[in-house]
Amino acid sequence: MFTAGNRLKLTIFGSSHGPYIGGILDGLPAGVNIDMDYINKWLDRRRPGINSITTQRKESDRIEFISGLKEFYTDGSPLGFIFRNEDYINKHYDYIRDNPRPGHADITMYYKYGEYRNYEGGGFFSGRMTLPLVAAGSIAMHILKNINISIVSYIKSAGGFNIQNENISDEDYSYSFRTRMPDPDLDDKLYNKILEIIKDGDSLGGIIKTIAYNIPPGIGEPFFDSVEGTIAHLMFSIPGLKGIEFGAGFKLGSMSGSQANDTFYYDGDKIKTRTNNSGGILGGITNGMPLEFSVVMKPTSSIRKKQETVNLKTHQPSEIQVIGRHDPFITLRAVPVVQALTGFAILDLIMSDSSQKKWDIFNRGDGN
Amino acid sequence: MFTAGNRLKLTIFGSSHGPYIGGILDGLPAGVNIDMDYINKWLDRRRPGINSITTQRKESDRIEFISGLKEFYTDGSPLGFIFRNEDYINKHYDYIRDNPRPGHADITMYYKYGEYRNYEGGGFFSGRMTLPLVAAGSIAMHILKNINISIVSYIKSAGGFNIQNENISDEDYSYSFRTRMPDPDLDDKLYNKILEIIKDGDSLGGIIKTIAYNIPPGIGEPFFDSVEGTIAHLMFSIPGLKGIEFGAGFKLGSMSGSQANDTFYYDGDKIKTRTNNSGGILGGITNGMPLEFSVVMKPTSSIRKKQETVNLKTHQPSEIQVIGRHDPFITLRAVPVVQALTGFAILDLIMSDSSQKKWDIFNRGDGN
Amino acid sequence: MFTAGNRLKLTIFGSSHGPYIGGILDGLPAGVNIDMDYINKWLDRRRPGINSITTQRKESDRIEFISGLKEFYTDGSPLGFIFRNEDYINKHYDYIRDNPRPGHADITMYYKYGEYRNYEGGGFFSGRMTLPLVAAGSIAMHILKNINISIVSYIKSAGGFNIQNENISDEDYSYSFRTRMPDPDLDDKLYNKILEIIKDGDSLGGIIKTIAYNIPPGIGEPFFDSVEGTIAHLMFSIPGLKGIEFGAGFKLGSMSGSQANDTFYYDGDKIKTRTNNSGGILGGITNGMPLEFSVVMKPTSSIRKKQETVNLKTHQPSEIQVIGRHDPFITLRAVPVVQALTGFAILDLIMSDSSQKKWDIFNRGDGN
Amino acid sequence: MFTAGNRLKLTIFGSSHGPYIGGILDGLPAGVNIDMDYINKWLDRRRPGINSITTQRKESDRIEFISGLKEFYTDGSPLGFIFRNEDYINKHYDYIRDNPRPGHADITMYYKYGEYRNYEGGGFFSGRMTLPLVAAGSIAMHILKNINISIVSYIKSAGGFNIQNENISDEDYSYSFRTRMPDPDLDDKLYNKILEIIKDGDSLGGIIKTIAYNIPPGIGEPFFDSVEGTIAHLMFSIPGLKGIEFGAGFKLGSMSGSQANDTFYYDGDKIKTRTNNSGGILGGITNGMPLEFSVVMKPTSSIRKKQETVNLKTHQPSEIQVIGRHDPFITLRAVPVVQALTGFAILDLIMSDSSQKKWDIFNRGDGN
Repeated sequence: MFTAGNRLKLTIFGSSHGPYIGGILDGLPAGVNIDMDYINKWLDRRRPGINSITTQRKESDRIEFISGLKEFYTDGSPLGFIFRNEDYINKHYDYIRDNPRPGHADITMYYKYGEYRNYEGGGFFSGRMTLPLVAAGSIAMHILKNINISIVSYIKSAGGFNIQNENISDEDYSYSFRTRMPDPDLDDKLYNKILEIIKDGDSLGGIIKTIAYNIPPGIGEPFFDSVEGTIAHLMFSIPGLKGIEFGAGFKLGSMSGSQANDTFYYDGDKIKTRTNNSGGILGGITNGMPLEFSVVMKPTSSIRKKQETVNLKTHQPSEIQVIGRHDPFITLRAVPVVQALTGFAILDLIMSDSSQKKWDIFNRGDGN
Repeated sequence: MFTAGNRLKLTIFGSSHGPYIGGILDGLPAGVNIDMDYINKWLDRRRPGINSITTQRKESDRIEFISGLKEFYTDGSPLGFIFRNEDYINKHYDYIRDNPRPGHADITMYYKYGEYRNYEGGGFFSGRMTLPLVAAGSIAMHILKNINISIVSYIKSAGGFNIQNENISDEDYSYSFRTRMPDPDLDDKLYNKILEIIKDGDSLGGIIKTIAYNIPPGIGEPFFDSVEGTIAHLMFSIPGLKGIEFGAGFKLGSMSGSQANDTFYYDGDKIKTRTNNSGGILGGITNGMPLEFSVVMKPTSSIRKKQETVNLKTHQPSEIQVIGRHDPFITLRAVPVVQALTGFAILDLIMSDSSQKKWDIFNRGDGN
Repeated sequence: MFTAGNRLKLTIFGSSHGPYIGGILDGLPAGVNIDMDYINKWLDRRRPGINSITTQRKESDRIEFISGLKEFYTDGSPLGFIFRNEDYINKHYDYIRDNPRPGHADITMYYKYGEYRNYEGGGFFSGRMTLPLVAAGSIAMHILKNINISIVSYIKSAGGFNIQNENISDEDYSYSFRTRMPDPDLDDKLYNKILEIIKDGDSLGGIIKTIAYNIPPGIGEPFFDSVEGTIAHLMFSIPGLKGIEFGAGFKLGSMSGSQANDTFYYDGDKIKTRTNNSGGILGGITNGMPLEFSVVMKPTSSIRKKQETVNLKTHQPSEIQVIGRHDPFITLRAVPVVQALTGFAILDLIMSDSSQKKWDIFNRGDGN
Repeated sequence: MFTAGNRLKLTIFGSSHGPYIGGILDGLPAGVNIDMDYINKWLDRRRPGINSITTQRKESDRIEFISGLKEFYTDGSPLGFIFRNEDYINKHYDYIRDNPRPGHADITMYYKYGEYRNYEGGGFFSGRMTLPLVAAGSIAMHILKNINISIVSYIKSAGGFNIQNENISDEDYSYSFRTRMPDPDLDDKLYNKILEIIKDGDSLGGIIKTIAYNIPPGIGEPFFDSVEGTIAHLMFSIPGLKGIEFGAGFKLGSMSGSQANDTFYYDGDKIKTRTNNSGGILGGITNGMPLEFSVVMKPTSSIRKKQETVNLKTHQPSEIQVIGRHDPFITLRAVPVVQALTGFAILDLIMSDSSQKKWDIFNRGDGN
């Protein structure tokens, strides 16, 4: 089903080459202020054609609210919003119907939907489906500011370059770098690497790091609705995302307990840990330290290089070169998607807290 | 909430030092044969005290069905089952109530549940809560055999040792090795390493690899209920699991598209891919290749070494040495949990398939 | 939340005086033919301004699909559809903000949403919100025809008139009567009664009977997801609906078991019952006899007669006369809503059947 | 599925002639006091063998908690509880396997579960399955007392007798009458009528009225999760319940708007209505007046009188006389089930309130 969330529910609909893509966000109480500029800032950060190393597809990606708003305040009914698809060309896709592109969902939609598959532009498997994720997520991020939660995402590793300094606390900072790798020197190097890759007709993968600050301790549920399980479930909806690790992640596999355990101390009245190998989560529940995780994005599947494939009609070997306007480094545009979706996850976890505590998270001045 | 699954729902209950741990498995049709020997085989594989490198807590871990069965066939109502806790000692836990153990959920249950927290033996955050996961998962694995799906899990990396040969297709094979690392030489080395670690009063983490064979192509849903999202959501319910990657996983972050894309060819009538970097999943949906993923388990948090902590009553620095009977290498006992839970995930995905195809998965001879 | 259904999910959004009302229908497989004429026939039957005894608000109520369709076949992603609100006037509603109309949700939205309440035209409590119910329901009714299920609804009682002959099996029949009371004589009498009521500035309630034919036996689940519970849950979403009874309903309260029990006999190979006091449902599950139930609609709350109310600002007694264009007998327009919603309920029950049987309900020629 | 509720979830399991019947109640925060005496009082009120006009099956119906409790306080994990079936005799049921009892689910479980049906004593369609409903409901009723909500249920109509005075506000009052019809004269008359019915080998139906006081205004959601829809959905899980009406209910079908509308006035600071035809609910949401509804129970299906049936093996006409220990007037024992289940519904509605207001409902002294 196309719905996620527990007390805050997001349903998405539409497809790459249909008339619209949109979302329905249900669960917000009445009286929540919706800041259009803030939403648009995040939509712009995933918009195609941002700079010379992203796809040149032209989409304005303006959000249009179709329900749930009265003069920029929620009315307690579902927020509905749509985006008009503007710049799509269906004729590119005749060939790929029968010659599935390696790395894409062409082959699996053939298995699942048969002759009724919506294959143009990847149909509803397209990266454009992340538009409503960013919209809903940025609404959540804006609400989380009421209790001082902030979320940072940036590219930590790509093209053989790895960032060292991870002390970033400004949610906007990484967007001042063309590649979203927030280091002047590495940004230049990665930028040039991507230009090379474009020339080669190839693409690159990457790793995105996310840190969320000031989440109250005690958020998340034991077992199935843990912070990790909730975030992972949502993150894997992002096309091309193939792994997630929290805190020290896969390094924990070669560590000992005395290295891995984060020991406690009091910093004033607050309990902190000397290290944060757990990524701010113990037993699936936040411990008050920054929430940290990384996700890996596979390289964009669409490449101009010739690749082996099969012809689904003739059952013969075939070849394909994916032409059209594609991102050589889709990880760059996934950064705001991961960041916003983290906001959605955290707001839903707070709203769904089984301890039924109350924060002034909706800033309605009444403790609710 | 303590429930997972879509059309096949598992609810778990109980705690480490309460009278029982149990589960309710709802959604199976009537007439499914329940094989007690098969379930017990899997329960035995996660049982404490298997050998000298696991905890010496004594639990028979016999499953008792309390509902849903008529003479070893399901009756269409929820399967209820319980395990009696036998060998628990509450007095160990007086100290940890006020001096949280690093790496454990002691501190987060303090935040979430306050004075009503169930802290003895980790309460309902205990690894014993994986018992109903193994029970439900082994029931699912048994059903999946009706359409020839088999699932293999083993330890791929731990203590600095990494297994190379990954061509394992027998679900029982890894259990012929004391460490579940299915290589005679590495098994010895890891075994000795663990003996050392026990002497040091420390613990080890590890990485578990899982491969599922013969899943029909077309299983899994686009976006939120993808194969990856569904499996990840469930896996993070396993205490101590901190990361998951599908196919080539985090390596994809430094690969190019031409390296990462799995190209297609016909093997007879079947479409296969030359490589399997996607782990058998494209667009969140199975493509007919083996489903492959790895998870990382952090080192057991309970160690005898002295660690820094805080006293929650005095607000002063404190120290703790975790005594009692603990697994130095809990990853070993997590292997059957991961394996069985994969079975649960796959059966639920098949039962929930939105294309509403029918397989003879329940083997009732009527195509249902 | 604004979502109903189990495997077939409907989310509705919008409000009476916002730009749109719409719905998202998720769960249909790919390849289901969507018949626009059929949907429009049902939408027309609940449209305002049908005849002189309905409201004169002018709405074309044309459905616009915004997602999920490829050339009139579903693509397996959510069907999104919207209706543009055309003929709304906000100025009527200044007075009622502070002087709640008796019988309406004005007062309860004041309690629940406070100053952010969407009160114009009843906001999202408006009867216009039944538009997406009819749309989704008519899609379901069309699918149910593939296995010969048909559903009939008509007015059984209103204005002191009660229909006797209940042998109606044509889903269109009641719409050949102006009042939806399918008896030429009673139709005339009720019609004249309504004209009187209009003159008086008053309104009428009524009872709607529904019969569904050819539902396979075995549909519905024990306990919470019974046929009765599922249908009742959905029906009470219809504004103004205050009661539901199945089979002999409230008459069962004064019957004896020997009168009430429906005894069995074989009619050829088919087991039938001599009477149908159970309304075709035993233990929450269909028994192969026609499914029968009645619902009661309260009289339209909006009346021109002067009524006592309170002023929410001054906390003083107040009066109100509800002017504007209102249905004197809203039950008439509720008939297709009840009928279509029954279709939605039955299709969802069939799709969610725990016995996992398969019917050729989607008519895709492959037994699925 | 065997689960109901939104933020407060109840899963039931077991069957009449299996070893146990039980429930899992998930969603309560930690620190809620569980009052065993209070629960047992309600269990006793539905227990068989209460007096000479109920079945003589002997069941102690003692609740045993198997999880979620620490010294009578919830620990935040699911409350699990079981009841041991003590007095069941399987041999009675050989005949009914092939000769379905009119009015029972014997025939529908044959359709749904085929040869694997659990038919002894009605299996999981038995009225014994209401035991966990009473347990969970009485826990909810006890919690609701923290904000002064009280719930009353009694028999309003049965055997041709109808109660007039409805001013009952004491939740225990109706249990001082043998028939639960709270009028000394009618209680006698109905009691004698039931004795006659027993002699005849027949049974009676009845109507149960419920009133809930002091529910805060603003509870319940628009559309699908309305107060009416939520309560109706739960009530239809009670075996034999065939109709529900709120406020004036089916009488609204023959009323005019000026009669039906409940007009408003201020009683001090509180807005009240002159009448309560809406049953305390407008737009699906509570308006602060008492919540009122009635349900009808069909006569007990098991009667000693000879009835026509069919033989499922021979496909021939057959006859049946239901011997064994049956309630002639099951409505009597349904009273506490309806009452407790109302408590469950109201608590879930309050916990799920989309406006996210907070009441001190769990009485933990911190506004939560």
